[in-house]
Amino acid sequence: MASSNIRYGEGVSREIGMDLQNLGAQNVCLMTDKNLSRLAPVKAVLDSLSKTGVRYKVYDNVRVEPTDTSFKEAILFAKNGSFDVFVAVGGGSVIDTCKAANLYASHPDADFLDFVNAPIGKGKPITRALKPLIAVPTTAGTGSETTGVAIFDFEPLKAKTGIASRAIRPTLGIVDPVHTLSMPERVAANSGFDVLCHALESYTALPYNQRTPCPHDPIARPAYQGSNPISDVWSRHALHMVAKYMKRAVRDPEDLEARSSMHLASVFAGIGFGNAGVHLCHGMSYPISGNVKTHSAKGYSVEHPLVPHGLSVVLTSPAVFSFTAPMCPERHLEAAEILGADMRQVKRQDAGAVLADTLRHFLFDLQVEDGLGAVGYSKDDIPALVKGTIPQVCGALMYEGLVAGSV
Amino acid sequence: MASSNIRYGEGVSREIGMDLQNLGAQNVCLMTDKNLSRLAPVKAVLDSLSKTGVRYKVYDNVRVEPTDTSFKEAILFAKNGSFDVFVAVGGGSVIDTCKAANLYASHPDADFLDFVNAPIGKGKPITRALKPLIAVPTTAGTGSETTGVAIFDFEPLKAKTGIASRAIRPTLGIVDPVHTLSMPERVAANSGFDVLCHALESYTALPYNQRTPCPHDPIARPAYQGSNPISDVWSRHALHMVAKYMKRAVRDPEDLEARSSMHLASVFAGIGFGNAGVHLCHGMSYPISGNVKTHSAKGYSVEHPLVPHGLSVVLTSPAVFSFTAPMCPERHLEAAEILGADMRQVKRQDAGAVLADTLRHFLFDLQVEDGLGAVGYSKDDIPALVKGTIPQVCGALMYEGLVAGSV
Ligand SMILES: NC(=O)c1ccc[n+]([C@@H]2O[C@H](COP(=O)([O-])OP(=O)(O)OC[C@H]3O[C@@H](n4cnc5c(N)ncnc54)[C@H](O)[C@@H]3O)[C@@H](O)[C@H]2O)c1
Ligand SMILES: NC(=O)c1ccc[n+]([C@@H]2O[C@H](COP(=O)([O-])OP(=O)(O)OC[C@H]3O[C@@H](n4cnc5c(N)ncnc54)[C@H](O)[C@@H]3O)[C@@H](O)[C@H]2O)c1
Ligand SMILES: [Fe+2]
Ligand SMILES: [Fe+2]
Repeated sequence: MASSNIRYGEGVSREIGMDLQNLGAQNVCLMTDKNLSRLAPVKAVLDSLSKTGVRYKVYDNVRVEPTDTSFKEAILFAKNGSFDVFVAVGGGSVIDTCKAANLYASHPDADFLDFVNAPIGKGKPITRALKPLIAVPTTAGTGSETTGVAIFDFEPLKAKTGIASRAIRPTLGIVDPVHTLSMPERVAANSGFDVLCHALESYTALPYNQRTPCPHDPIARPAYQGSNPISDVWSRHALHMVAKYMKRAVRDPEDLEARSSMHLASVFAGIGFGNAGVHLCHGMSYPISGNVKTHSAKGYSVEHPLVPHGLSVVLTSPAVFSFTAPMCPERHLEAAEILGADMRQVKRQDAGAVLADTLRHFLFDLQVEDGLGAVGYSKDDIPALVKGTIPQVCGALMYEGLVAGSV
Repeated sequence: MASSNIRYGEGVSREIGMDLQNLGAQNVCLMTDKNLSRLAPVKAVLDSLSKTGVRYKVYDNVRVEPTDTSFKEAILFAKNGSFDVFVAVGGGSVIDTCKAANLYASHPDADFLDFVNAPIGKGKPITRALKPLIAVPTTAGTGSETTGVAIFDFEPLKAKTGIASRAIRPTLGIVDPVHTLSMPERVAANSGFDVLCHALESYTALPYNQRTPCPHDPIARPAYQGSNPISDVWSRHALHMVAKYMKRAVRDPEDLEARSSMHLASVFAGIGFGNAGVHLCHGMSYPISGNVKTHSAKGYSVEHPLVPHGLSVVLTSPAVFSFTAPMCPERHLEAAEILGADMRQVKRQDAGAVLADTLRHFLFDLQVEDGLGAVGYSKDDIPALVKGTIPQVCGALMYEGLVAGSV
């Protein structure tokens, strides 16, 4: 496995101006979203940038949960700017948009679908060098600062998909926990659920040595390899941190210890799932967010209907882990125990039920919307949801690396 | 932090021929030592190489615990061969030698001392690109496949020192646990002690946020940053694995589960200490191995006197951790507990004594030589040992990255 360059610590984002100088930057593209552009994280980065006198332009039109249209607008901005370094300050939406902008600005002749995962796109390999990208995450969620993935909603199909390649992984992730203090309560909750599911899914993913067919040539291995002894360390540790700190982090925006710990947990879970992959919660989340009708996301400063990624992922988690438990009951029991379940008198065959119950309590305590009905779906939507899920979770496709879109 | 590309699994070293083809290799330099050149790990790699038809040359004259002289001989071989990829199959001695050979072959005009750590060398930064290096570790010890460090004995001063730069870190580590099955009992023990001390020292190293002065510019940060929440995950996990598997791995050479686990633990501890640094056991080990008189290392197929690295490191560990415990008693207690100490009625102020006792039992069970006297030192040697230790462990020097030599 390969993991990213991560710098962690309170205030480390104030050094970014020097990092840019060290990279020899002359003309920086800073990407963020409209909401963040008014807040402390962007201000801190701009302050540091201004001190160095490096020239920069700000693009703050990132869409919260990007689409092909919003990606293309950011790409156009990047192409026109001839930038030599990219900086993304924001959540997964910003970091993913910036990855795509950097990619297509370096491949000005490529069609948009060229690098998008098959079958929606052509999944072509990336051959040219990209510019350095520094990611400064402001949510404790996606771990996008550690991964080679950029997700967007492909509007013609109402389905999320993505671009997956090591080439788009940020050069450096600057993880400054102070930036998470301004997250609204629901952003902290939903992005935290994303961490929870990255950890749980990667820990319970099919083990690397049980996947078939095994590619003959190591270069043909998918980025997502199945759970393995290295990703397990990250996933399990992230789960411990979520269990210990998530409720505090959501409830008290001033609890720096808890918010810092969740910020690190998002990095750890990102390294874990970026290596092992995710499975059903993520696979099913794509049509849940893609088919959104009118649901408006509490606490998200956006105009468009939205089932935020972390929410769309976690809603199915009790059902998912009841279903997957028979594959590896020990790991499901261990996860339930880490999340605080009372394990006395629990038997192996109860693993699914126990973990599902533990998750239900956890979600209830954090006041999550009560099921798919609460985000606007009814029985009539089942065919559309199923249709959108199948391509994401079919075992064979996962193996081919398609599920690289599923994060 | 940045960690390496690691591939792990039984039999993965048989894919190396394809890796070399994927790298476009035309002319490979395979380095190993005389003993290993007759054994299964080298055979497996050569088999895979032969299948591809890639041209290669073998250098098997690596010295076990290299010196400046032995480094220079390997460098000469590398310079004369115009190789485009390097492969190291062996323990830390082989991997470190190969790193140096690759470095100087890429800088044919450099003096040997140019890149050696100051004050012995000039500590110049490495500016040119090196060739790819694939490391296939055969001991469960140094973690050299993950680090940017190459250690050697500088004979004129009877002191170990090294070269430290991210640039010499292997491109890929192929961690194939099958290769550790042939380790003699004492090689398994001593290299395992190295893992133990990498884990314990990095976990108890001065925390990153308590070190001063803090470099103004992030580029000036030392490779070894002090313990931090990322290295802690690796160090603690490695310690758990050592506690669970080391005795089994040493005693039963056929216990594949235990030997595999120790092999992984060496990778994890390598990533941990490669990021946090080590401290007194390693700092004091340099004169202990450098001043060796006549001690011959059991189970090591070598002619020269030798106190193997892992042994020279672990001998002082009970004394070291009694001394360091007041800095962070909780971590010392936690380490003792992980290593199996009975923690009932233990108080904070007992931390050093408890960890020291636990280590003494652990070493006794593994039949370690009983102290410095047993490897040939007497009271008269104390001044020389102290003299050799001071430059390694002085806080200020550590901070400047000098202790980058201490691994
Ligand atoms: N690339 C990956 O590896 C990966 C992994 C998981 C999810 N994703 C994608 O990431 C997106 C979700 O990202 P996210 O959950 O980080 O949220 P987000 O980027 O969509 O942001 C959500 C909202 O929170 C606001 N916000 C963010 N940080 C804030 C702060 N510190 N203070 C105040 N407001 C703040 C934003 O302005 C926005 O309104 C989805 O599109 C999802 O598919 C990507
Ligand atoms: N670069 C780093 O990060 C780093 C870290 C720690 C130590 N070191 C250095 O590494 C060296 C020690 O390396 P080591 O402990 O791995 O041992 P080693 O490479 O010195 O090998 C010790 C002996 O074991 C034999 N051997 C190794 N693997 C074997 C196998 N699978 N089967 C049979 N015999 C085998 C070797 O032939 C040799 O005789 C020292 O010079 C030390 O200073 C480097
Ligand atoms: Fe996610
Ligand atoms: Fe060592």
